[in-house]
Parts: sequence; C-alpha cells; structure tokens
Amino acid sequence: MSFLPLLFPKLPFPDKYTFISTQPIKNIRCILQYKGTAYQGWQKQPHGPTIQEIIEKCISRITNESIKVKASGRTDAGVHALVQTINFFTHSLLTPNKLCQALNSLLPQDIAVIYADEVKTEFDAQFCVKRKTYIYFILNSKHSSPFLEDYTWQIRKILDIPAMQEASQYLIGKHDFAAFMASGSSIKNTVRNIFYLEIKKKAPFIIIEIEADGFLRHMARNIVGTLIEIGLHKRKKQEILSILASKDRKSAGINAPAKGLFLKEVKY
Amino acid sequence: MSFLPLLFPKLPFPDKYTFISTQPIKNIRCILQYKGTAYQGWQKQPHGPTIQEIIEKCISRITNESIKVKASGRTDAGVHALVQTINFFTHSLLTPNKLCQALNSLLPQDIAVIYADEVKTEFDAQFCVKRKTYIYFILNSKHSSPFLEDYTWQIRKILDIPAMQEASQYLIGKHDFAAFMASGSSIKNTVRNIFYLEIKKKAPFIIIEIEADGFLRHMARNIVGTLIEIGLHKRKKQEILSILASKDRKSAGINAPAKGLFLKEVKY
Repeated sequence: MSFLPLLFPKLPFPDKYTFISTQPIKNIRCILQYKGTAYQGWQKQPHGPTIQEIIEKCISRITNESIKVKASGRTDAGVHALVQTINFFTHSLLTPNKLCQALNSLLPQDIAVIYADEVKTEFDAQFCVKRKTYIYFILNSKHSSPFLEDYTWQIRKILDIPAMQEASQYLIGKHDFAAFMASGSSIKNTVRNIFYLEIKKKAPFIIIEIEADGFLRHMARNIVGTLIEIGLHKRKKQEILSILASKDRKSAGINAPAKGLFLKEVKY
Repeated sequence: MSFLPLLFPKLPFPDKYTFISTQPIKNIRCILQYKGTAYQGWQKQPHGPTIQEIIEKCISRITNESIKVKASGRTDAGVHALVQTINFFTHSLLTPNKLCQALNSLLPQDIAVIYADEVKTEFDAQFCVKRKTYIYFILNSKHSSPFLEDYTWQIRKILDIPAMQEASQYLIGKHDFAAFMASGSSIKNTVRNIFYLEIKKKAPFIIIEIEADGFLRHMARNIVGTLIEIGLHKRKKQEILSILASKDRKSAGINAPAKGLFLKEVKY
C-alpha cells in the first residue's frame, strides 16, 4: 500500500451509466477530491463551511441555476475524500469537461474535481452505491511528522498487529453494527455487510482498509478505535463478539480521529 | 524517488562530532523537521513568526536560559525542512533525549525534533557544513491535488525533460552563480560547487535534486525556475551558459515558488 498512487486514482470511468442525452436537462456526475481539515464535513449545515455548500455555490455560479447536488455519502468534519462521487441536474450547455475546468478555477485549493461526465437519468450518486471503501492511516511512531499531521493518527506505543488482525475477522460479513454507530443516530436498519477488512503494517504506518455495502455514522472510525484498543491490549480480541451482540455504542472503543480517514473508493 | 521515505530519513547520527563532555556547559545538536507554510522562514525577523524564534523560545523555556541557536542555513518563507540541523550551548542537566521529548511537547505540530545529541565544542551547525541537498517537487498535471498543494509547484503544460536534463549539465561543477542569486543580496563570494543535479520524472511528479557545497539566497529556486522555462521551450538549453556568464539576476528565469522546496540533507 503506497500512499501517493492513492492521491492519483485510476478512474474506472466512463462506465455503464455514462451517456449523452438529447434532452435539455442533463444529469452530470463529478468525482471530487478534498482535504477535509478546514470543513465541517460534506453535508450543508448552519455552522461553519461544508464541502457541499461550496460545491453547490460554485456550480450554481457557473450554470446560473440553483443547483442541488447528491453525493455517495456524507463524510464527517475533518475526513478526506479521494473519490467522492456527486451528481446534479442542469440545463447548462457546457460540456462536462468545460464544466470541470470552470469548477476547478472557482474551487478553493483543498477541493478539486478530477473527472466529470454526463450520465443516465437514473444515476443517483447516493442511492446507486453498491460498495464503499474507507482507508485509515495510523502513524505508529514515537516521532510526529510535521508533514502528515492532518492525515494520520499518531499512536506512540507499539501495537499488537496480529491481535488486531484476528479481531478484525469477527467483523467481516453481515452483522448488526449498531454498537459501532454514533450514539444519537436515528437510523433503523443497522445491519451492514463488510466484504473486506485488512490491517497492514508498512512502517511507520499501520493502514486499515474497510470495504462494505454501507457505513453507519462513525462506523469506520469506531471500528478503528476499537481495533487500536485491542492492539494496545486494553481489550481482548474476542470482545468484538460481545460488542457486536450488545448493539450498544457504549460497549465499543473510542472514535478514532477523523483526520486519519479517507473515502478511498465508491463502486456503482 | 519515493516521497514517504524522505519524510522518515535514516539519520547518519551519531557521527564524529558526537561526544559526552564533563563540562557544565554542553553543545547540543538537534535535527528538526518543519513544514514551512505558516512561517516567514528560518531566520528571526520582526514581521511574522519564524522557526528560529519558536525553537529558541521553547528551548529557553525548558532550560530556563536565554538560548541562541545556530542552523545549517536559513530557509526562505514557505520552504520545508526534512533534516535542518541546529546547535546551541546550555548548562541544562537534561539528557539530549529528555530535551528532545520536552521540546516536542512544546513545539507546534508543524515543527518536530527527530534527533538530539551532545557534540564536541567545535561543532557549529552553520560553519561545519560540507554539503547540502535540496529537493524540489513539481506536480506536472492538469489536475491539482488538494493533498499536495503546500508541497508542490503545479505546472499544467507538458515539460521537455530531456532538454531540462541537458541544460542542467551546464550547471554542475564550480561556477559563479551570481545570476541565480536573489537581487539585493550583499554576499561577496558567489562561487559555488554543484556536485549533483538530477531531474527525474516519476509521473505525475518531476523531481529536481541539487547537492552543492552551499547555496546562495534563492539559488535553488532560481535554478528550478530557469530549468522549467527551458522545459516549456521559453528558453534554449544553451542559454544557461550565457546566464552564468552574465552574473546578472535579470538574465535568469523566474524564482520557483518556495512551497515545492525541501532541505533534504546536510553533510558535516
């Protein structure tokens, strides 16, 4: 797992949704990258700047319409995105490529559009998602890094990686992840399917990658925080089973800091 | 040339200067890393924060003395350091290791001490320098990267790397680099010896590494700026010869932005 190729993902687009319509209203898809540090997350809200708010303002200015965008999902305050996918409907006559250029010239330097195309009407960035992958970077080192502070969670103590890897096996598959959901969430169906959960050591990093059909609020970070507690021998690896069974947020570990988390892939 | 190992350099210390004295006053050497983005460069000055000012304040607070530090050289505003070397004299009874820990607990997150030891009295971080290496990162891509904005100079157009490589050959060796020195500098001896100047493409990056016995003010950035103009076919590669001969700053190319430049190595 090398870091830099992640920043320049090979895009799997165009895909089955790519389409050129003859209608005056077009469904445009964009792939965004953003550094989440300065934002209150993806979703628009009254306090502080959000990525959604800035994107909608910039697109609305270019198209001279009042644009609402849909995204593959919300990212929390401070979480980064390597391939956030969005879509919106517009009457603009600009090609997706020109729109992409215009958008990049207006966006702040911590948000970039890396791809844009026209897609079929039925494409909905939120509801068509099949799988999402998050990746989390732990800097497992006594020394901090001035260059990676915004992108990693520093853990100074030695972590028991085999224990974390064994514990992670209990999480793979279809489970009720209610215990790993942020308290106060109102969502009803808390069953999710984790297809892939890998913990790799690439000194001085420990990298945790999770692919699932969906993530509850804080689920990725609560899983990382719990695995870290196991790696520090504050918990036994078997505890994952009782945590899952409890369906109680209070039984799981801490919520890992947002800054180490990246939305790595969205599959449609 | 991979990026991450640069952030975690293998330190060549202890070395011939390392020493444990029996005197009450000790000469302490520290290796620093810093992200230069938020600072007005290394050297103390009246306007805006500098790395020297912060380091001296933190060490003085730990040792309860008024500490002055020497560094291997000044870095400009916005320039980063992977291995800045400093030294200072103190009566403190703390071991270098404890001092390093105390310092890291006081320093802001964009400055870190990665090594400290006691050295012989004659060690002077500035005057004992034999060679220094700077490395410059160009992001040669149409798309910007939200994650690399503070660390790279983005050039959207295709660069003629072979032309840049040929031009760079004229710069290697002992020359009067007055034409590549910031205008207004008062230094008398403008002859420097470039031992090594390499331009590598590692898509989407172009990486320029320069090792010399010393660098005039803005010399590394003026060389990079001039090579880029050659790569864009705004200048011919042979012009390097007439630029060197002119000894006139106005004949050389633009000063490349500070943000792409890293102090990579200091040899004693």
